[in-house]
Amino acid sequence: MTAQLSVQKLAETRRATLDQALDAIRTRAYFSPHPEHPKAYGESAPADGLAAFQALRGTRFELDQPGSDGWTGAETSPYGPALGVEYPHADLDALLPAMRAAMPDWRRAGAETRALVCLEILARISARTHEFAHAVMHTSGQAFVMALQAGGANAQDRGLEAVAYAYDEQTRTPARAGWSKPQGKREPLEMDKTFTPVPRGIALLVGCNTFPTWNGYPGLFASLATGNPVLVKPHPRAVLPLALTVRVAREVLAETGFDPNLVALAVERPGEGIAKDLAVRPEIRIIDYTGSTAFGDWLEANARQAQVYTEKAGVNTIVVDSTADYRGMLGNLAFSLSLYSGQMCTTPQNLLIPRDGIDTDAGHKSYDEVVGDLAGAVDKLLGDDARASALLGALVNPDVKARLEAAAELGEVALASREVINPEYPDAVVRTPLIVKADGARSGRDGAGEVPYLAECFGPVSFAVAVDSTRDALDLLRRTVREKGAMTVGAYTTSADVESAVEEVCFEESAQLSLNLTGGVFVNQTAAFSDFHGSGGNPAANAALCDAAFVANRFRTVEVRRPA
Amino acid sequence: MTAQLSVQKLAETRRATLDQALDAIRTRAYFSPHPEHPKAYGESAPADGLAAFQALRGTRFELDQPGSDGWTGAETSPYGPALGVEYPHADLDALLPAMRAAMPDWRRAGAETRALVCLEILARISARTHEFAHAVMHTSGQAFVMALQAGGANAQDRGLEAVAYAYDEQTRTPARAGWSKPQGKREPLEMDKTFTPVPRGIALLVGCNTFPTWNGYPGLFASLATGNPVLVKPHPRAVLPLALTVRVAREVLAETGFDPNLVALAVERPGEGIAKDLAVRPEIRIIDYTGSTAFGDWLEANARQAQVYTEKAGVNTIVVDSTADYRGMLGNLAFSLSLYSGQMCTTPQNLLIPRDGIDTDAGHKSYDEVVGDLAGAVDKLLGDDARASALLGALVNPDVKARLEAAAELGEVALASREVINPEYPDAVVRTPLIVKADGARSGRDGAGEVPYLAECFGPVSFAVAVDSTRDALDLLRRTVREKGAMTVGAYTTSADVESAVEEVCFEESAQLSLNLTGGVFVNQTAAFSDFHGSGGNPAANAALCDAAFVANRFRTVEVRRPA
Repeated sequence: MTAQLSVQKLAETRRATLDQALDAIRTRAYFSPHPEHPKAYGESAPADGLAAFQALRGTRFELDQPGSDGWTGAETSPYGPALGVEYPHADLDALLPAMRAAMPDWRRAGAETRALVCLEILARISARTHEFAHAVMHTSGQAFVMALQAGGANAQDRGLEAVAYAYDEQTRTPARAGWSKPQGKREPLEMDKTFTPVPRGIALLVGCNTFPTWNGYPGLFASLATGNPVLVKPHPRAVLPLALTVRVAREVLAETGFDPNLVALAVERPGEGIAKDLAVRPEIRIIDYTGSTAFGDWLEANARQAQVYTEKAGVNTIVVDSTADYRGMLGNLAFSLSLYSGQMCTTPQNLLIPRDGIDTDAGHKSYDEVVGDLAGAVDKLLGDDARASALLGALVNPDVKARLEAAAELGEVALASREVINPEYPDAVVRTPLIVKADGARSGRDGAGEVPYLAECFGPVSFAVAVDSTRDALDLLRRTVREKGAMTVGAYTTSADVESAVEEVCFEESAQLSLNLTGGVFVNQTAAFSDFHGSGGNPAANAALCDAAFVANRFRTVEVRRPA
Repeated sequence: MTAQLSVQKLAETRRATLDQALDAIRTRAYFSPHPEHPKAYGESAPADGLAAFQALRGTRFELDQPGSDGWTGAETSPYGPALGVEYPHADLDALLPAMRAAMPDWRRAGAETRALVCLEILARISARTHEFAHAVMHTSGQAFVMALQAGGANAQDRGLEAVAYAYDEQTRTPARAGWSKPQGKREPLEMDKTFTPVPRGIALLVGCNTFPTWNGYPGLFASLATGNPVLVKPHPRAVLPLALTVRVAREVLAETGFDPNLVALAVERPGEGIAKDLAVRPEIRIIDYTGSTAFGDWLEANARQAQVYTEKAGVNTIVVDSTADYRGMLGNLAFSLSLYSGQMCTTPQNLLIPRDGIDTDAGHKSYDEVVGDLAGAVDKLLGDDARASALLGALVNPDVKARLEAAAELGEVALASREVINPEYPDAVVRTPLIVKADGARSGRDGAGEVPYLAECFGPVSFAVAVDSTRDALDLLRRTVREKGAMTVGAYTTSADVESAVEEVCFEESAQLSLNLTGGVFVNQTAAFSDFHGSGGNPAANAALCDAAFVANRFRTVEVRRPA
């Protein structure tokens, strides 16, 4: 194939960004080439993005993949309307061989070219951030600004971070080396060696409903940048953002002279459930998955032919010991509980508060006061329906609503969930967070079965757990992380000793810790290039976004040695 | 604990070697601080080493581990004599908690101190290389010089390489970082972040019979250097080299102020088979294993709570297409087949030779001539019993002898195995390599069952497989690597096209390739810091020695962030 877009041109336009990304993952300083502000994309971008999204609705989404045998798709926006988009349904016995056939040229291209092509894909996605934001919003239920930031800019950051790690890892071993071993008085042994990164095989990305791009891009770009074709299997309710991604990737691959089948889409028919069959096919050598613990565990146990990277459920905890900024703590926690209706894998679920209360800059506050003041802070934050909608988004699916309603029966309600009417989308199901009181002393295994707050209750539900002491809070934190996993842990304390003790639990149980957040950084947000998302060391996830372990086993290095 | 040996002192003596090792894994140039020549260890070293080894025989090997509940051990040298060494038998319910208790201090020591302590352990082992050589010789059956090189110097190299990778990986993320995110006209968000490598838990090393130190040190030192305690479970026939290793490690840990229980030994009673129970205990979070495919597969399927690194069986192939140095090729292959009686995971098993013969610098040679000349080269190499013994060592156990005898019935014998009398150890079972002719055209799955050469026949057995063409050889090579795995692939050719074609198969099937070896480098030898041992990408092994993937998942990085 002749490339319309040469590697040289790509290097001119993209290499500097790659170098900045490589620098950022080493320094962990702030970096992002993808703006979070909607206005940063040009004056016409909002209208253009909306128009592009609207133009997709009610159409067939052409991809020109080999082996398409029909059309499928039934997405309905959590904001109400059916999207009406149909996607090609793949005959995997035709598609997978086409993907495999694309591998040798992509391997031969080498790590730098692969990275540059990936950066070009990300740059084109970035240019269409507004369109993607609408697609994310109307599949995940995220509010528009969040969809633009988390589903657009931040997802692109995480994709770029994965490309940087993949490039860095593949180039740590030189492409070629001379080797000369002294032999005393005899001539040295001289060998010429080459080292070639080789892909494992086809990578399968199993997308999720809530963050199709943010949780999908790291695996997609890590696999592609290391030479593997990627088959994208979106969540049936969140196809469009990943279908758009696949389309852009295929365009860029074709323009740069590569086989577009290096990235392909597999949308399932209703009830078809293709992930289980796909996951154990011999062609599939890498799997990235975000979703339920049950299916994540199934993948880890059964997809033995593949490297499996999973992000599953966890129970996130905040230890409240004391604070020098009571108001800041309440505001920060209220925001964290409310953002996207608590439908983030990083949202705090259990707030561990000493039964005897806490010391604060506003005086000693009893357990009931802390819980009441937090409820008040949430109420204040979400008092206006329009503002509340912009923060809460919509419940992503009816399961979340059912879970929320059932949770109100689990204990004394400290803050009832209320219905919010989104002025723009009156059909959206919007609910404010529920806070339920719970008793930490009952967390032991006393034969009474497990307490409800030790199971993940995904959605706008949190538990204000009364504990006998901060020490008991740390014991409960440790047990929760060890047994249930956690993507995030937070703590508020003015005591250096407590701070060290919380750190120690997090070191021992491998959990990511945020301390004393009272301003504009929230426990449920992590920034690519600087923050690790998950640790890969507790049951919530077997990998972290993004580190060397996330990329190093997606390729292997083949050495060829010959006498020099 | 007060350290007799300070970290500062360790840095003075060991940091330079660490830096050289770090440089070597990046350049892949020749490097070794561990001499291969027996005389390099000082004039008295041979006698001292032998005396130290002899002093161990017929004694109880004290280790002062907690929870020892008896004594066990029944090693018999493949050279004849019983060693008579007894080792403490561990009560794991006492030992494992003691090992876990040692973790926090070791984690807090940090990556550099851990690396320096590991280097001190290796340096002390290096100083006792002659003693270790006798221990390796009399458990593995390796000849003395090989035991000193492969079991001593080269094993120490592989251990150091693992330490270098582990240190490099843990320090790629800075210990601390500032983060400042611009907020337009508002003040930037400022965070202070720390990144701490944390261990996974107790690592289990399941040792092998043939290369207890060479195959054991990479996992042992990779786990220890990343903060994990290591429980060493040696092969019951090859305990002594690893028991000595554990003793040295415990001494150095104690002297440097750490808990010696960071490294411990678990020797099983006859028939006890503790590996299966140990492997699935929740405390065990990492497993390194070298041995049979059956148990390796079992570990991968069942030890789900652990990161499992396995080196299993494979079928190594040499493609013989043509050569510009016929005599060199024959000599090199003869040596490769003979070294340690073919009891290396890297020894070639199948020699694929065109039925119509090959072009060489000595004229065209028919298949029969090539096979006959190779048989002649082996005969010549091993004509003298003393010299043969120094190359062949002894058969490691009766299974190898039985397999060798059965293999003579598998086809026309091109070179019969003969019995060699080791003049020093007349009880040693020593046999020269067997070469059996086979027909590559019968390798297809024609319902007649699998041909014998497609199963690993561990020991001094190889097959001269007649193929219709080099193209057919490449097909058979591909199928062998894909289905059976391979630690090594070799090829002889004067054709650039054939060379490319073999490389392509190795790239696609992830196999390490040696081309046209006719001198003093052999396909079955890999050099630490430069050569990868295995690829981790075909069924012979799920990891390579040593790369980032081998170390990156033995620890996790915990981030703690707080407002700046």
